[in-house]
Amino acid sequence: MTTTQIRAAIVGSTGYGGVELIRLLQSHPNVTVTSVISSSNAGTPIAEGYPHLTEIRTDLLDGIDVENIRSKADVVFLATPHGISMKLAPEFLEAGLKVIDLSGDFRLKSGDVYREWYKHEPAEQTLVDRAIYGLAEVYGSQVAGADFISNPGCFTTSALLGLYPAVKAGWINPDSIIIDAKSGVSGAGRGLNLSSHYSEINENFKAYKINKHQHTPEIEQVLSEAAGRPVITTFTTHLVPMTRGIMSTMYATLTDKRTSADFVELYRQFYEGRKFVRVRQVGNWPATKEVWGTNYCDIGFSVDERTGRITFISVIDNLVKGAAGQAIQNLNLLMNWDETLGLQFTPVYP
Amino acid sequence: MTTTQIRAAIVGSTGYGGVELIRLLQSHPNVTVTSVISSSNAGTPIAEGYPHLTEIRTDLLDGIDVENIRSKADVVFLATPHGISMKLAPEFLEAGLKVIDLSGDFRLKSGDVYREWYKHEPAEQTLVDRAIYGLAEVYGSQVAGADFISNPGCFTTSALLGLYPAVKAGWINPDSIIIDAKSGVSGAGRGLNLSSHYSEINENFKAYKINKHQHTPEIEQVLSEAAGRPVITTFTTHLVPMTRGIMSTMYATLTDKRTSADFVELYRQFYEGRKFVRVRQVGNWPATKEVWGTNYCDIGFSVDERTGRITFISVIDNLVKGAAGQAIQNLNLLMNWDETLGLQFTPVYP
Amino acid sequence: MTTTQIRAAIVGSTGYGGVELIRLLQSHPNVTVTSVISSSNAGTPIAEGYPHLTEIRTDLLDGIDVENIRSKADVVFLATPHGISMKLAPEFLEAGLKVIDLSGDFRLKSGDVYREWYKHEPAEQTLVDRAIYGLAEVYGSQVAGADFISNPGCFTTSALLGLYPAVKAGWINPDSIIIDAKSGVSGAGRGLNLSSHYSEINENFKAYKINKHQHTPEIEQVLSEAAGRPVITTFTTHLVPMTRGIMSTMYATLTDKRTSADFVELYRQFYEGRKFVRVRQVGNWPATKEVWGTNYCDIGFSVDERTGRITFISVIDNLVKGAAGQAIQNLNLLMNWDETLGLQFTPVYP
Amino acid sequence: MTTTQIRAAIVGSTGYGGVELIRLLQSHPNVTVTSVISSSNAGTPIAEGYPHLTEIRTDLLDGIDVENIRSKADVVFLATPHGISMKLAPEFLEAGLKVIDLSGDFRLKSGDVYREWYKHEPAEQTLVDRAIYGLAEVYGSQVAGADFISNPGCFTTSALLGLYPAVKAGWINPDSIIIDAKSGVSGAGRGLNLSSHYSEINENFKAYKINKHQHTPEIEQVLSEAAGRPVITTFTTHLVPMTRGIMSTMYATLTDKRTSADFVELYRQFYEGRKFVRVRQVGNWPATKEVWGTNYCDIGFSVDERTGRITFISVIDNLVKGAAGQAIQNLNLLMNWDETLGLQFTPVYP
Repeated sequence: MTTTQIRAAIVGSTGYGGVELIRLLQSHPNVTVTSVISSSNAGTPIAEGYPHLTEIRTDLLDGIDVENIRSKADVVFLATPHGISMKLAPEFLEAGLKVIDLSGDFRLKSGDVYREWYKHEPAEQTLVDRAIYGLAEVYGSQVAGADFISNPGCFTTSALLGLYPAVKAGWINPDSIIIDAKSGVSGAGRGLNLSSHYSEINENFKAYKINKHQHTPEIEQVLSEAAGRPVITTFTTHLVPMTRGIMSTMYATLTDKRTSADFVELYRQFYEGRKFVRVRQVGNWPATKEVWGTNYCDIGFSVDERTGRITFISVIDNLVKGAAGQAIQNLNLLMNWDETLGLQFTPVYP
Repeated sequence: MTTTQIRAAIVGSTGYGGVELIRLLQSHPNVTVTSVISSSNAGTPIAEGYPHLTEIRTDLLDGIDVENIRSKADVVFLATPHGISMKLAPEFLEAGLKVIDLSGDFRLKSGDVYREWYKHEPAEQTLVDRAIYGLAEVYGSQVAGADFISNPGCFTTSALLGLYPAVKAGWINPDSIIIDAKSGVSGAGRGLNLSSHYSEINENFKAYKINKHQHTPEIEQVLSEAAGRPVITTFTTHLVPMTRGIMSTMYATLTDKRTSADFVELYRQFYEGRKFVRVRQVGNWPATKEVWGTNYCDIGFSVDERTGRITFISVIDNLVKGAAGQAIQNLNLLMNWDETLGLQFTPVYP
Repeated sequence: MTTTQIRAAIVGSTGYGGVELIRLLQSHPNVTVTSVISSSNAGTPIAEGYPHLTEIRTDLLDGIDVENIRSKADVVFLATPHGISMKLAPEFLEAGLKVIDLSGDFRLKSGDVYREWYKHEPAEQTLVDRAIYGLAEVYGSQVAGADFISNPGCFTTSALLGLYPAVKAGWINPDSIIIDAKSGVSGAGRGLNLSSHYSEINENFKAYKINKHQHTPEIEQVLSEAAGRPVITTFTTHLVPMTRGIMSTMYATLTDKRTSADFVELYRQFYEGRKFVRVRQVGNWPATKEVWGTNYCDIGFSVDERTGRITFISVIDNLVKGAAGQAIQNLNLLMNWDETLGLQFTPVYP
Repeated sequence: MTTTQIRAAIVGSTGYGGVELIRLLQSHPNVTVTSVISSSNAGTPIAEGYPHLTEIRTDLLDGIDVENIRSKADVVFLATPHGISMKLAPEFLEAGLKVIDLSGDFRLKSGDVYREWYKHEPAEQTLVDRAIYGLAEVYGSQVAGADFISNPGCFTTSALLGLYPAVKAGWINPDSIIIDAKSGVSGAGRGLNLSSHYSEINENFKAYKINKHQHTPEIEQVLSEAAGRPVITTFTTHLVPMTRGIMSTMYATLTDKRTSADFVELYRQFYEGRKFVRVRQVGNWPATKEVWGTNYCDIGFSVDERTGRITFISVIDNLVKGAAGQAIQNLNLLMNWDETLGLQFTPVYP
């Protein structure tokens, strides 16, 4: 573990993912954010659009100028939409910067699958192959020393941390998996849209993109790796009238008679030493607020003897473990720092 | 259809179910609420605890006095907790009143099953046998002319209206059914509890009673009737930070290759002439706010060819179709009135 | 009181004011909505953008075609933005329709004042002079028989019903009045805007347009009439993380030693026979939810002997008494019907 | 500034104030929380009632045992209700511990005033006299080196930081001050109560304790000191459907013609060097979310030439600057540390 200070640039600083990176990195002991970048608002103070940053960040937004960023930063976070990241990442990599991309552009290894689910042409295959998929608690060892990280999706992180050990162990039938996911509204970003208009969402609960969500193939790609064979799943997303938080409630058929306690034990072993996964004891299921504002993923189990099925509950803060927090965790791993560096927050409760 | 005016009494008028009965019956053309009853607050004005009723209901709460109620009312709604209803129902029936019970006391036909899930001794079997289970769109014809109705549970109503036609038709495998249900907080009633304390619920999403909810056997009882053989299901409940609304997202394996459009057609035929079920067209899934304040149950479908599964979305207002509204619908059916009488509200939106 | 049936058209049917007019008029015994009009979505089903109207309104949106509307309707509601109403109103009046305008275009009698606060050229003075200002409980007698009504603003209604009797009676010093108003987000309409974006509003409370709100001169115009001399006031608006409801908390200096009970008495006399104003007894202050979904305005008082000031609390549902409900109340008055016709809802609680 | 490590005990650890002290102190570089104390739950893990602390605090709750606490701690925070603090404080002081009390027991210098507003017998006058009133940005210099701090009330902090400089400078007439305050629900604590029951508060806005709130005399005590003569004020509190945040909207008459810019200048000078007060520029008013989770108090102004009045907006997070955060700031001052130590959080947004 080195104590090198590094300099970071954030592209897409006016989105919720970008501004959460700023919040978290403000207190990171080894990182200084030297450039906050927005193509649309360059030249204006970041605190103008985000008054909570008054007197905390007094700098102006930079435009996207690779030369300028190279002179200021060692690592660049891309908090940009898919389609944009695939254009920016190669330029920054070429310039010798480390790149951590928060979009979906480099997560799917197959261009055809990307095209089908994102309705967009995929990135160059060589770039896709080069990107390390940063699901930190599963593929963290591949991240160390890498220079190009593809940060997992928010739903994906929640679902996979909840399912991976059971699939890997062969304790559940992968073909039986059903993922019923619920997210706070911040996951939809700051872009104006009727489906994040206050009066439409408040006192309302709705499903969306049923059987069409682009995180489906990302989940299946990792579960297939865990199972050692192709896995397809049913994945449904819902919008909850709250700002932050994702819960994935997941169902699967047991391959053998096992108890909730067996699963607690399996998961505690699998995640041993990984501070950000908290495996709850039997009969205790996490709520989203219990990880609010932090990089935790909390997991609980309920085996039902009547049906031979297990129900998994997995919760994260979508903007932290589901985006900015895991991106910083990946930076820590990449730099061979303790993965919790700068991320040791206590959940804000209530 | 007669135009007889009848008089109604509401026991449990200070709970949310009771006060919703008052709201709905205030505008029912054939019903006058002549007695609002509360064992704990008898003698005080109902508007004292519920100031929204100021100048609308100026009467005092009555105590539970069967003789008095008999002199004032023709029908009594029991908006009382389970365990209490089983004591009151026989007294009111004996006195010649029609009884519509909103508790769980008379829903389960088997005393053993009741004992197991409610952790309470069951009601007399003869009484249980006498109660008509008032899932209006399914068993409505049995309600006409009855004098004792057991009103279905809120989750149950949402789940069964969404699943019944498909199970009855044999289009889905009943053993594969998984019900992931989400409810607003009013379902937990007005009783003080940490799990309905504002700061614990706001900006939070949580699961509860996993594999233990007492509506499970009620759902299974009806699905078993539909399937013609015993059915067990996986049923999970969650609390949404909102006051009203239930969504059941439900998953099942198709028995044959069929499309979402096939299901739309099947359901429109099954529910033909039943105004309170609105079957959405393909690609259109209901949100809870779209039935808010009304007796509607809206249903949508998504067949996934990849997995061979169907996803059902069914939404209701838990206090209306899930409680007070369906109780009044049952009164309408019982009196041979149009089932929509006094219930033709447009959802409040936004 | 006649029982004539009339036909209504609603221009601006895809805004929240318009869709609330539809909801309320669906159950009005004397009115049929024969045309729902939207310049931007003409030709598409109203239920497409508002699925809660599925099977309730199956008609398509009409365009703005005066001839067509004249053939279908007797009265037209303009739920259009200011600037638009001033163009449409004369055309509809010319065509012989009764017009009820919900915008701010005809509320201010002085064109100069309009120009200053709305930053827009005023409507023709003759038209402005012709419009009756429909603050129903104050100017209702002027509405009867009129053909052109300017419906008051939402904040204005709440503030004026709370202050008018006291100013008229000379019991408070008009120069001392301070109005601190709070509104739910639906008041800002369905137009997309960062200040009604869910994640910006949820778990947030903010002030806006301080000393600049266009309802200020409207309030002052009526208070000046009540006081018999020019009155200026301090008026502040805030956004509450909820969909519906306005509370105005108002402060003034007493001109004489009087008690809260004196004010209760004064207000009950002033509003005698007006069902939609509920004057609360001493020590009882209304909350916004207690009028939710209805046309009520509830008012409470607290005189403070220490300071010689009185605090007024006045609440309404901004979309009902603050817009669509009062517009229908004005229609009732204009038609010489009972002012409560079609508006006798019980507040939805909880 | 010393770097001494100190040990802290928190009495009342199961209330929201206590648990917020735990959250904040977890990352304080100079403080270790060695005992979390609850009279009612002693012997059980703190994480049992607060699962968000899972694996963060694994210790059991201690009972109130002065000897034991003395052996473990140097400073004790009393996050206990009024009436309790007055019993505990002398015992801990006697035992040689520094005491920071978050209740109202030692804030009012006059026993008679305490008795009138708290409806409870006051604490010993000698103790009251000994307590330093820890409004950090105003009386911080008195805190340094003290051993007994009375932490200000939440509403009080928000109101006083907004008003103090203007009153002190004589720029506003103290007799004209009106404070309209709004608070999130967490201020009411974790105790069960109908007025913090979710379904009663969600989608609702209400006023409470009008002209009766116990923070009134606390505000007046400090304003009187600033004005150099007795001041009485009108103070109203409201409940906002959100968890955290207080806004005080405050009105006063100017003593001379001055602009908003003059006030910005005055306040920036007054609070120079005090990091936790952020004076907003002209035309920019803070929202509660912009200080969420932090110790900031943000202040904005609007002078209205028409009325000769000024409107102040002052926002805080009620659990941080309004309770636990300011208590820690007082500990920092008392220890002669930088007042921002351990409190340099960026607001959580959105």
